[in-house]
Amino acid sequence: MFGLIGHITVQPGRRAELAAILLEGSDALPGCMSYVVAEDVADADGLWVTEVWTDQAAHRASLELPEVQASIARGRPLIVEFDQFHETRPLQVGSA
Amino acid sequence: MFGLIGHITVQPGRRAELAAILLEGSDALPGCMSYVVAEDVADADGLWVTEVWTDQAAHRASLELPEVQASIARGRPLIVEFDQFHETRPLQVGSA
Repeated sequence: MFGLIGHITVQPGRRAELAAILLEGSDALPGCMSYVVAEDVADADGLWVTEVWTDQAAHRASLELPEVQASIARGRPLIVEFDQFHETRPLQVGSA
Repeated sequence: MFGLIGHITVQPGRRAELAAILLEGSDALPGCMSYVVAEDVADADGLWVTEVWTDQAAHRASLELPEVQASIARGRPLIVEFDQFHETRPLQVGSA
């Protein structure tokens, strides 16, 4: 598995808008095992994204999809910066 | 939904052991919607945990379960520190 964890600082007041764009773009992407978009409780402009993919190739391929490229184009102006961006090796995607 | 994102610095060489303990303890916990344990690729002793719960009460209740308390007791000595620990409001738990 291949994973990403990122923390985005969003333009003030635009967090819900960016989150909606990210979630739209993530529907049914091949190889995407988990995609969690979460507001930071302590930071009104902070957004966390946790992604799990079958492998890095699946993630890279997703970035070439027209709908993902459209989401990136719409979302980019709302982003002040990616404060954190970490590649991970997820060990298991659990849930009950 | 209620979420947590944490980054743990693990005692050198003990990351796999701690990850196994965390994953054992997370099996089928009531109210746990997603539980991702992932190694930090850039940090040999770094471990990320991303949790999604139905609500904060479900998370609190999980901490009272004997099996979770046993996991915490076994895991704690392997932890150098929680470098990051963030409460979140997950907006959606997506996957394809």
